[in-house]
Amino acid sequence: RIDGKRLWDSLMAMAEIGATPKGGVRRLTLTDVDKRGRDQFRTWCEALGLQVRVDAIGNMFARREGRDPSRLPVLFGSHLDSQPTGGKFDGALGVIAGLEVMRTLNDLNIATEAPIELVNWTDEEGSRFGHSLMGSGTWAGIYGLDKTYALKDAEGVTVGEALEGIGYKGEHAAKPFPADAYFELHIEQGPILEREGKEVGIVTGAQAQVWYDAVVTGQDAHAGTTPPSARKDALLTAARIIDLVDKLMRERGDDGRGTVGWLQVVNASRNVVPGEVRFSIEFRHPETAVIEELAAGFPAMAEAIATANRTPLELTQLFKIPHQPFDPGCVDLVRQAAARLGYSTREIISGAGHDAVYVARSVPTAMIFTPCKDGLSHNEAESIQPEEAEAGAQVLFQAILARANR
Amino acid sequence: RIDGKRLWDSLMAMAEIGATPKGGVRRLTLTDVDKRGRDQFRTWCEALGLQVRVDAIGNMFARREGRDPSRLPVLFGSHLDSQPTGGKFDGALGVIAGLEVMRTLNDLNIATEAPIELVNWTDEEGSRFGHSLMGSGTWAGIYGLDKTYALKDAEGVTVGEALEGIGYKGEHAAKPFPADAYFELHIEQGPILEREGKEVGIVTGAQAQVWYDAVVTGQDAHAGTTPPSARKDALLTAARIIDLVDKLMRERGDDGRGTVGWLQVVNASRNVVPGEVRFSIEFRHPETAVIEELAAGFPAMAEAIATANRTPLELTQLFKIPHQPFDPGCVDLVRQAAARLGYSTREIISGAGHDAVYVARSVPTAMIFTPCKDGLSHNEAESIQPEEAEAGAQVLFQAILARANR
Ligand SMILES: NC(=O)NCCC(=O)O
Ligand SMILES: NC(=O)NCCC(=O)O
Repeated sequence: RIDGKRLWDSLMAMAEIGATPKGGVRRLTLTDVDKRGRDQFRTWCEALGLQVRVDAIGNMFARREGRDPSRLPVLFGSHLDSQPTGGKFDGALGVIAGLEVMRTLNDLNIATEAPIELVNWTDEEGSRFGHSLMGSGTWAGIYGLDKTYALKDAEGVTVGEALEGIGYKGEHAAKPFPADAYFELHIEQGPILEREGKEVGIVTGAQAQVWYDAVVTGQDAHAGTTPPSARKDALLTAARIIDLVDKLMRERGDDGRGTVGWLQVVNASRNVVPGEVRFSIEFRHPETAVIEELAAGFPAMAEAIATANRTPLELTQLFKIPHQPFDPGCVDLVRQAAARLGYSTREIISGAGHDAVYVARSVPTAMIFTPCKDGLSHNEAESIQPEEAEAGAQVLFQAILARANR
Repeated sequence: RIDGKRLWDSLMAMAEIGATPKGGVRRLTLTDVDKRGRDQFRTWCEALGLQVRVDAIGNMFARREGRDPSRLPVLFGSHLDSQPTGGKFDGALGVIAGLEVMRTLNDLNIATEAPIELVNWTDEEGSRFGHSLMGSGTWAGIYGLDKTYALKDAEGVTVGEALEGIGYKGEHAAKPFPADAYFELHIEQGPILEREGKEVGIVTGAQAQVWYDAVVTGQDAHAGTTPPSARKDALLTAARIIDLVDKLMRERGDDGRGTVGWLQVVNASRNVVPGEVRFSIEFRHPETAVIEELAAGFPAMAEAIATANRTPLELTQLFKIPHQPFDPGCVDLVRQAAARLGYSTREIISGAGHDAVYVARSVPTAMIFTPCKDGLSHNEAESIQPEEAEAGAQVLFQAILARANR
């Protein structure tokens, strides 16, 4: 059994790194704050006698050897990076719970059959460089390393420069190595478990999604002298596309997701008709077919709005992920562990993207969810109870043990 | 007669201060670049033997004494600050043409009866602190000095701090002193003179306007897990208000103006439903009654959109200026000067706000416009011909002489 209090204390210690005044966390990927989180994680791992490797995209692997050197490792983990104004648990829970698994094994002097490895994936959030699940996606070979290194943040800093800047461009190849299984514990980030009073979510898969970058080009012009007929207002075009994204989402019912989360008016000034606007767009849905339909139809609709306003639109699809089912065997280990521990459970599809989604393409994978208050995440007010964290970590511990000793 | 080549050379020298790669100017008010423009202006004035005073809001006055000490001064000038990506002539033309007037009087050894004063007004553009015509408005007593000092830019720097930072918080009171007249030469910033092939615009007044700041508060939430029914999307509300502003503008025909020029998604992230959006709104029209009607109706319409989206709106009216007619006597001096010089002319209402609008409340005022290419302004591509600048400066020179010697 894991130690719930030790788990919580370490979660709170990690939450101090990049703590915000409103009780959240700002630990943006590959910043100095992220480096402090990574350094702390490495120190904790090394104190347990674990050897930490870093790969070329900054993913960190902390290995504990097993009894049988011929066995493939069982992986588990999550991410330590956060949203610009994120919560204390999104990502950190899975990493710190993994650490608690390692500590418990050491305390109990348990040697597993297979080796086990705890992972901290780089840039899961995607908010800085535009590719969520970046570290796991590069590891899984979905994002090419050179292209990923060249991605830029809004200030023009590349992923490669940022990795070097914090000293986490590691020497190990960023590509999949043979592994027996991957388990990830995460907060649900949605309202379902809380609403139904379930302690543990058995995640059977994750929904499909497609992300875009949009650039609208109009013409800077004087707000006082430029008549309606002469305007090429890039922000008006963006506004109408934002409305379209919302409409397309609602047409798909309560499972629809469509979001413009980031928008910048270039060289904005109060008395200037905007000449250039850049923004992000993303759609999600549990069914791949719905995302395919949106990806086929949305660009032309957005284009039509831009053309009507005489403000050309450049739309770039950043990535598209189909619905990802998890491995029935691994999911079953989670189900059995939760049952053995007596927790109330529910099967659930993940609304968020997770590193597990990309890892699942090469390694049998499952995820465990715990409830979070009001379903709120990507918000500084994100909140969970210590017992909820403990329940998730217990299930994680049992599932890993079962798999590593099978 | 003024020297067109010397005028152009000084315009080009000023345009080098804050020059942008695309041929425009970035000389934002009260920045170090603005200081360099001011220092250059002061150096030029002092080389002519003019005494330069600076008032408490940073307005600069360069005085040339007249023959009759009992006469009130004739004022003229414009502004040296620019938009973030502005043009070389918006503002600078009126100041540098004023300098050319001074140079010509010195060359020709002309003593005017009344003293004359060339002014460089602080922060005409309004793009940094949200109040256009800030220096002239403070001088005219429309903006209170303490409130103006406390205005903040997007980084939280106050006007008072910025003035001290560049050493231009002067010792003279920022309030109207008795003056005989004010003349301002400016590019039209619109398409009318060019379209009709007129060399000089006789400006009879300026249109009414109202400016707002808007803050929409929604709730940060995960883009992948938050269903349509649970969203409080601040950007969607802003988008619909942007659409409303455009609609209200178009309903008022070709004289209508409605612009959202500046917008910021606070803590924006691609996979976060926006929790806070800040933006600017402004409306303009030649008729005061139309602006009054908009100021009476728009807030409730915007409010209704915000309420329907469950994202409260805080709307702050920054200022409201009625239509400002100019002084018939001063306008007539401009008309006579242009006729004497043989230029083709047209009477015109200013679409842009100008320092002349506030000065006109306490001093008899008139303005002179020159055409600009494609009517384009608040754009780096803003462009005029040397002959156009020369024509405007000739008219300015003659109007000032006529008034100062009447
Ligand atoms: N878990 C999580 O919030 N991931 C961020 C990537 C996404 O789903 O947008
Ligand atoms: N002349 C000019 O562009 N003034 C800026 C103030 C405004 O009209 O918005």
